[in-house]
Amino acid sequence: MSKEINNESRGDTVVFETLTVRREGAILFAEIAAPPMNLLGPELVRDLVSLIQRAEADDTVQVLVFKSADPDYFISHVDVTRIKENREEAAKLTGDASIGQLLRHLSASRLVTIAQIEGRVRGVGSEFALACDMRFAARESAIFGQFEPAFGVIPGAGAAQHLARLMGRARALEVMLSAEDYDAELAAAYGWINRALPASELGDFVSSLAHRIASFPAAGQVVVKERVNAIALAPVEDIRRDSDLFIEGVRSREFQERMQAAMKRGFQTRDAEMPLARMLADLYDR
Amino acid sequence: MSKEINNESRGDTVVFETLTVRREGAILFAEIAAPPMNLLGPELVRDLVSLIQRAEADDTVQVLVFKSADPDYFISHVDVTRIKENREEAAKLTGDASIGQLLRHLSASRLVTIAQIEGRVRGVGSEFALACDMRFAARESAIFGQFEPAFGVIPGAGAAQHLARLMGRARALEVMLSAEDYDAELAAAYGWINRALPASELGDFVSSLAHRIASFPAAGQVVVKERVNAIALAPVEDIRRDSDLFIEGVRSREFQERMQAAMKRGFQTRDAEMPLARMLADLYDR
Amino acid sequence: MSKEINNESRGDTVVFETLTVRREGAILFAEIAAPPMNLLGPELVRDLVSLIQRAEADDTVQVLVFKSADPDYFISHVDVTRIKENREEAAKLTGDASIGQLLRHLSASRLVTIAQIEGRVRGVGSEFALACDMRFAARESAIFGQFEPAFGVIPGAGAAQHLARLMGRARALEVMLSAEDYDAELAAAYGWINRALPASELGDFVSSLAHRIASFPAAGQVVVKERVNAIALAPVEDIRRDSDLFIEGVRSREFQERMQAAMKRGFQTRDAEMPLARMLADLYDR
Repeated sequence: MSKEINNESRGDTVVFETLTVRREGAILFAEIAAPPMNLLGPELVRDLVSLIQRAEADDTVQVLVFKSADPDYFISHVDVTRIKENREEAAKLTGDASIGQLLRHLSASRLVTIAQIEGRVRGVGSEFALACDMRFAARESAIFGQFEPAFGVIPGAGAAQHLARLMGRARALEVMLSAEDYDAELAAAYGWINRALPASELGDFVSSLAHRIASFPAAGQVVVKERVNAIALAPVEDIRRDSDLFIEGVRSREFQERMQAAMKRGFQTRDAEMPLARMLADLYDR
Repeated sequence: MSKEINNESRGDTVVFETLTVRREGAILFAEIAAPPMNLLGPELVRDLVSLIQRAEADDTVQVLVFKSADPDYFISHVDVTRIKENREEAAKLTGDASIGQLLRHLSASRLVTIAQIEGRVRGVGSEFALACDMRFAARESAIFGQFEPAFGVIPGAGAAQHLARLMGRARALEVMLSAEDYDAELAAAYGWINRALPASELGDFVSSLAHRIASFPAAGQVVVKERVNAIALAPVEDIRRDSDLFIEGVRSREFQERMQAAMKRGFQTRDAEMPLARMLADLYDR
Repeated sequence: MSKEINNESRGDTVVFETLTVRREGAILFAEIAAPPMNLLGPELVRDLVSLIQRAEADDTVQVLVFKSADPDYFISHVDVTRIKENREEAAKLTGDASIGQLLRHLSASRLVTIAQIEGRVRGVGSEFALACDMRFAARESAIFGQFEPAFGVIPGAGAAQHLARLMGRARALEVMLSAEDYDAELAAAYGWINRALPASELGDFVSSLAHRIASFPAAGQVVVKERVNAIALAPVEDIRRDSDLFIEGVRSREFQERMQAAMKRGFQTRDAEMPLARMLADLYDR
């Protein structure tokens, strides 16, 4: 792929197993396609690691835009049956077997990253969006959830760190402890995302913003990111601590029991998860 | 009361002098009733200490909801004639004679706390709400004020710590230095509260949220609270420092003179305080 | 001027070269008038230093309100041809040759400062507003921009520090990396300003707020500012570091080339800069 990424002509497209990457000038538009519902599994982690490594190695790449090929799911959440494999793939980027460190690497990268969000963004999907430098969401379709506490665990890849800093103590606690779904308007009001936009304008807005940013010098962007990250990005140790606490929680009997109940209700299946927040409230109801 | 709190049947109610506590499953709904205007005096502090101690000692209690029996006042503010007694009662919870430390204890508790706010929430009333994990307010009736600087003192129980972290430097300074009244919409826009809701929906919303949270494992909630508090809750020393500065200020001649003038205008009386922000602007006008 | 500032009668006015200062009780209303477009040059820096020194030396001054005589420009940005002279003037206040330290001095001052904003507030103009304790802007006319990264440099006088703390990582990065213009509504939604108000109400609102604050004891205001600043104001070293990084960037070839292109497009001229954000996107277009 390095050849294609280095190619500056318009419209070049490279296809990974779970990502389709199109280049326009200094911008890579990466479309996530991991059917049936864009779960974060080891194939997607592996492709993200490759994309990040190649983009960072290519000085002519300046901006990375992520969107989804699935109108209902941006990234649904982690594939809970493959947490161990995910972590092994993530370790190839940072040496640390943790999705949280992979995402923190992305936040600290010289690349400017933008999430263009339609559909559901829950669990590690939300954490992926939070790790991007900016995130814009479709008013009509985007749905956000940080539902891990419904299973008795803290989010494992940095959500508590990001949310507490972005929206303050009370709203961060509400979002996580309620495990509720939040629409784009409320997510914007809480600072979870930069802005909610009409779906019909979202693509053009993000593309135009990406091109604008790519027209400015990369050197200054690196400095701005470093200085802002020094204030507002969680330290590596805190990301690691949350990751460890998540893994501890996943091993608990309570998590396992709840996950079994959820699986019986259709957790990790496309249709059943559309109204996930409701499912979580009724886990043991029938 | 421990017997009743441990009783899991629905609808159990326990009456303290200034609190009526009803239990539903793992939730305690505590209604504040300290007529004539829900001032924070030693009876209410004592009852809060009891409630917190008993709820924390009972593993089957998970969520604590606070609301007011008075539609016009949630907690009006501290009874300025009884600051010393308040602090002595507060010391029974933490060993520290400070309302700020009592409130910080509540924020750090394993219990999930929700403030359901109608009416006025000023001074330590606002600080009580800020110490809760979440706060939702009635659009039509809730009024917020952190008016201590009108008397020349810093808020004594953590407001500066919470507000600076929740709404940033400029809005926190505005709120305190103006000593103004803020309605629920503006309080929500500033991040003072989680959300403003129509009064007709507030009770059902909070009850439903409390039941939802209570249906999730307590263990994960403790971890989430610990990690968020590590980022966003003020250190004990800063709460203590603000408390000391408040007490210093209260002893000043300027505070005493202004308080005398306010008392002549009806400070600490129900009707005169309804438009308190206006009274503060006219202290010496007649 | 000290005589006039000490004079407590209403309506006293003192004229500096670039500031007209009117006194009402404990309030100084300073109107910025540095035609043709309120660039920050050494005259304005010198006058600001004088004003701050005299106001701080006069115990009867409590509140400082800044507004502009130019409806289209509050402070447009730094005069890029006079950065060195600006820094020399700034050094007279703090000993540190940096506009950032001058502004931080203002933020840490015992004086309560309010920016009343109509027109454009870009670059160091935004940083000046951010250094004030509060800022209110006209919905119809105020425009905010932190466009330095369009020239490959970080803002030099504290914007990254303020914005990251006020609006969080994602919005701060968006604002700076996009170098876009933001209207007052969006600036308020992001926390850049306290509130957006109709232009017809702005003056009365700010004046009334200033008089209200000035009617309260100065001693308590000092304590509140100190405690809030301890949480939310950037350390001196971080302001200095950003200032150094800015100066490094200004010396780069890339900055110089872009600035030359901008000058050809009318940068630092009144009419051409009205739509500055658009100019920045088209620097090399013709």
